[in-house]
Amino acid sequence: MPFVNIRITREGATREQKQRLIKGVTDLLVEVLGKNPATTFVIIDEVETDNWGIGGESVTELRKQ
Amino acid sequence: MPFVNIRITREGATREQKQRLIKGVTDLLVEVLGKNPATTFVIIDEVETDNWGIGGESVTELRKQ
Amino acid sequence: MPFVNIRITREGATREQKQRLIKGVTDLLVEVLGKNPATTFVIIDEVETDNWGIGGESVTELRKQ
Amino acid sequence: MPFVNIRITREGATREQKQRLIKGVTDLLVEVLGKNPATTFVIIDEVETDNWGIGGESVTELRKQ
Amino acid sequence: MPFVNIRITREGATREQKQRLIKGVTDLLVEVLGKNPATTFVIIDEVETDNWGIGGESVTELRKQ
Amino acid sequence: MPFVNIRITREGATREQKQRLIKGVTDLLVEVLGKNPATTFVIIDEVETDNWGIGGESVTELRKQ
Repeated sequence: MPFVNIRITREGATREQKQRLIKGVTDLLVEVLGKNPATTFVIIDEVETDNWGIGGESVTELRKQ
Repeated sequence: MPFVNIRITREGATREQKQRLIKGVTDLLVEVLGKNPATTFVIIDEVETDNWGIGGESVTELRKQ
Repeated sequence: MPFVNIRITREGATREQKQRLIKGVTDLLVEVLGKNPATTFVIIDEVETDNWGIGGESVTELRKQ
Repeated sequence: MPFVNIRITREGATREQKQRLIKGVTDLLVEVLGKNPATTFVIIDEVETDNWGIGGESVTELRKQ
Repeated sequence: MPFVNIRITREGATREQKQRLIKGVTDLLVEVLGKNPATTFVIIDEVETDNWGIGGESVTELRKQ
Repeated sequence: MPFVNIRITREGATREQKQRLIKGVTDLLVEVLGKNPATTFVIIDEVETDNWGIGGESVTELRKQ
């Protein structure tokens, strides 16, 4: 019964890409740990670039450089 | 000083329902563990159905079946 | 398919108390939002008092006052 | 390689304030623990006041009092 | 710069299995979204079975059935 | 009423260092956003190096290089 939370910046991930992430992570947990996919949850959080920082700067600023 | 994070799919929970969740969880922590409600936090995250997967599929897809 | 994360300080919550939290939160989500208990997850994190701060002080320090 | 998640209510924090939070937390981790800022992540989540509870009431209700 | 948090019950995942999870999730994010692996973080939390509930019961109880 | 979660690898942060993190983050939120320190929570999670990955490798492996 794993729970996976994927956090990415909100920069246009499509529905199809998000489905591939959900499928890929679930398959990985089945393959590596023998987990039951029926009780494997995946939540994707898309975060505004103003709200994500790395190296002390927001991604909004980093994207301008 | 408990902290509770409730994550649900964004499918129309009303303000009144969210208040009942906040009140109910807070009361539970007071009752079971004797916690102080004044420093009990509850945060509800509503997640798009495209962004929540179970069994390797998004809830958007599951809702269609 | 809700996911609930309860974070409390590690100060001796018993197995029985944790079961009551799990049961109580699950029942609340069924009652308020009509969620399916079979896919309702609850995770309890117990945090050392050195690692939890409130008002700028660790709970370890606050417990001494 | 620290990861910091700051959760605040969505009540008008500006881009400039969020940059100050990102910069301030990163500097703190460098100063206190000698962490590498290049691999220090900060994510700010802004939560609707309906979805944040304290003392068993939503912040929306508390703001009216 | 994705951040992934995988939560599983603490039931003997080996170091080698955890490495495969870290590698597999990172590769997936590179492949699906073109993310930079150098700034892709994966954190695995192993949760005691007393502290994980599903269907209103702890995993400790479910494992006995 | 902010909530801050700081995640670092478990590599010997002292109680005094953790107190400085708690104090520093709380002061930052007061200074930048005018938040009330009495309802500002900080939780520090220390994660085993086997359980933290970056660039597709665990920190345990990275520390050997």
